[in-house]
Amino acid sequence: MAFIVQKFGGSSVANAERIWRVAGIIAETYSEGNDVVVVLSAQGDTTDELIEKAAEINPHASKREMDVLLSTGEQISIALMAMALEKMGLPVISLTGWQIGMLTNSDYGNARIKKVSCDRIRNELDKRRIVIVAGFQGINKYDDITTLGRGGSDTTAVAIAAAMNADLCQIYTDVEGVFTADPRKVPNARKLEEITYDEMLELASLGAKVLHNRSVEMAKRYNVNLEVLSSFVRAPGTKVKEVVKLEQTKISGIAKDTNVARIALIGVKDEPGVAFKVFRELARHKINVDIILQSIGHGDTQDISFTVAKSDMAQAVQSLQEQQEVIGFKELSVTDKIAKVSMVGAGMVNSSGVAALMFEALYAAKINIHMISTSEIKVSVLVDESEADRAVQAVHAKFFGN
Amino acid sequence: MAFIVQKFGGSSVANAERIWRVAGIIAETYSEGNDVVVVLSAQGDTTDELIEKAAEINPHASKREMDVLLSTGEQISIALMAMALEKMGLPVISLTGWQIGMLTNSDYGNARIKKVSCDRIRNELDKRRIVIVAGFQGINKYDDITTLGRGGSDTTAVAIAAAMNADLCQIYTDVEGVFTADPRKVPNARKLEEITYDEMLELASLGAKVLHNRSVEMAKRYNVNLEVLSSFVRAPGTKVKEVVKLEQTKISGIAKDTNVARIALIGVKDEPGVAFKVFRELARHKINVDIILQSIGHGDTQDISFTVAKSDMAQAVQSLQEQQEVIGFKELSVTDKIAKVSMVGAGMVNSSGVAALMFEALYAAKINIHMISTSEIKVSVLVDESEADRAVQAVHAKFFGN
Repeated sequence: MAFIVQKFGGSSVANAERIWRVAGIIAETYSEGNDVVVVLSAQGDTTDELIEKAAEINPHASKREMDVLLSTGEQISIALMAMALEKMGLPVISLTGWQIGMLTNSDYGNARIKKVSCDRIRNELDKRRIVIVAGFQGINKYDDITTLGRGGSDTTAVAIAAAMNADLCQIYTDVEGVFTADPRKVPNARKLEEITYDEMLELASLGAKVLHNRSVEMAKRYNVNLEVLSSFVRAPGTKVKEVVKLEQTKISGIAKDTNVARIALIGVKDEPGVAFKVFRELARHKINVDIILQSIGHGDTQDISFTVAKSDMAQAVQSLQEQQEVIGFKELSVTDKIAKVSMVGAGMVNSSGVAALMFEALYAAKINIHMISTSEIKVSVLVDESEADRAVQAVHAKFFGN
Repeated sequence: MAFIVQKFGGSSVANAERIWRVAGIIAETYSEGNDVVVVLSAQGDTTDELIEKAAEINPHASKREMDVLLSTGEQISIALMAMALEKMGLPVISLTGWQIGMLTNSDYGNARIKKVSCDRIRNELDKRRIVIVAGFQGINKYDDITTLGRGGSDTTAVAIAAAMNADLCQIYTDVEGVFTADPRKVPNARKLEEITYDEMLELASLGAKVLHNRSVEMAKRYNVNLEVLSSFVRAPGTKVKEVVKLEQTKISGIAKDTNVARIALIGVKDEPGVAFKVFRELARHKINVDIILQSIGHGDTQDISFTVAKSDMAQAVQSLQEQQEVIGFKELSVTDKIAKVSMVGAGMVNSSGVAALMFEALYAAKINIHMISTSEIKVSVLVDESEADRAVQAVHAKFFGN
């Protein structure tokens, strides 16, 4: 008899057959006596189709109107799911973002949640109804429709779980949980029973593609018990929580991120203020910089290398070239044929030599490391994109065996 | 410098090209200095596609969830139209049913408008924005989404025009206006410059398929100036108003309606209360009866014939057969191979012999009349379905020439 929020992604509700599968999961949870709130994404490719429709009319449409358009996708999903549960004879009601009072700021297309007014959901649960909620969408103070951007439906689920003190927030995806590496690339990858919020955050930002950072951050802030599990395979998933059991291995996972470009400024003057000028310029264009490496000066010049998302590469290069004289560099080199391989684990903090084991594994596999970045619970290396999968396998084998 | 409400149907916004055409009409109206509120239906076949999606999951889905689903169609239209106008550099905003405060009763799928709160639209017009409104949809007092049923977008447009005292409500369709007969069937059909609400009501209910009765009734009640015109051909349409110019011909149009079935109860006792029993039974099943004909008794029995919509035929027959003993009839005969041909004209009231001219035309064409019904501004006859088009042509030729 618990209060459970369940979120199902677009691939889980892509067609009638999958809707029935998900309806079965919901019905089971409800029939065990639980209060159930379900958050849904748009079906499969609906969002892409809507974006295409818009692009045909106006590729530079305002974000406000894009949100009016895109929010229909989730509305279709919730109605269809409610119909499936109705057919099973269960009491159910679907609710949109504005109906549940999902109040956000006015940053259309990427809105932040400010408040969830839980009255309507609470009333429906009191009537013992299953409540199906449209993820990804909200309204701002002007009563205009907003959307939450990438990972928005996860965030909706966690926000409702946080606001209503749910016992558990289950995120159903097309994978069975969080693995020690991408199981499609590393056959020996193991499913983790538990993982901490911080480890999950590092893995998400490193391209593990299981949960979006925003939802994990929110779960951490409000101490929401998360579980990542599959809507296709009925098995326990991975629990994400504040503290995990002690017998946890040092390393929770190895992740690959290919959405990386490296820019190197060569022949920069070895004097104060240079880094400031470079990164102020990038910040002005809202370009996030990840790994930064500043070489030790040789003669009176040095090199500065850093990574950005692939989508920001062209803009970064253009704006730096425009500022070449101000910054004062001789040459700019750039590549997007690289990848970031990272290993994450809360156990690393209290354990020396973990990074060394990673480098040893890469050396044995004859993989060249271009850049290194470390934090308390993570070590990332930049390698050639063509060697990234091999790098993940090598590091995974070192820590988890073959 | 007027306040104009423009409504465009589903075929007018079916694809990008048509959206651009409509955007051109809107832009022209706006650039003449008018306040413009635009009401849109769902694109082309969107509603049918959504109904199909629902039927695949649950053919008996609740009407509440159907309304959640179907209301997305208009929301997609308004966003796309706003994007087109944005691209033309015009200030524009799209608004859904709940955003404009379109309050209805809770009769999901066929809701009646109770009130339009005009504040939001007024605010946007004050900013000199073009306001694009989703037709067909509203909300009830529980904040649940409702839809208005057939002709809902026309009704939305008229309701806004009435509530906000618009100078004109233009209903754009795929025909150029109201014709003296269906121009696809009668090549000589003439476009009417003006027509009264009452004539329009008769024509609409008679299957002229130009405007829905609900919207015309509402326009009449609130004295909204309507104009029916084409979104494909730029030309003045037909004005619908309280009083039309005197030189108007006696007859405004000839219409055909094939959505008719005739049921005859044969050998009914010639005693009081029989008609009551028959039509109470039909009313209990919410079946509307149109033409009623009660034969003069011969011996101690008589016959009662009446017409219903084709979709109600099976239900009507079944319920009458169940009550055969209570009502007391010998035999029930039924056919849907019939059609109703009607001629409408406010001029008829003060002019004798108009009906006789119609019957003469049908006689000359050797078309048999099964039933006749008359009102102050209309004469309808029931003929074989196979002869209906010929009947329309014959009557049209009689009044409007070849």
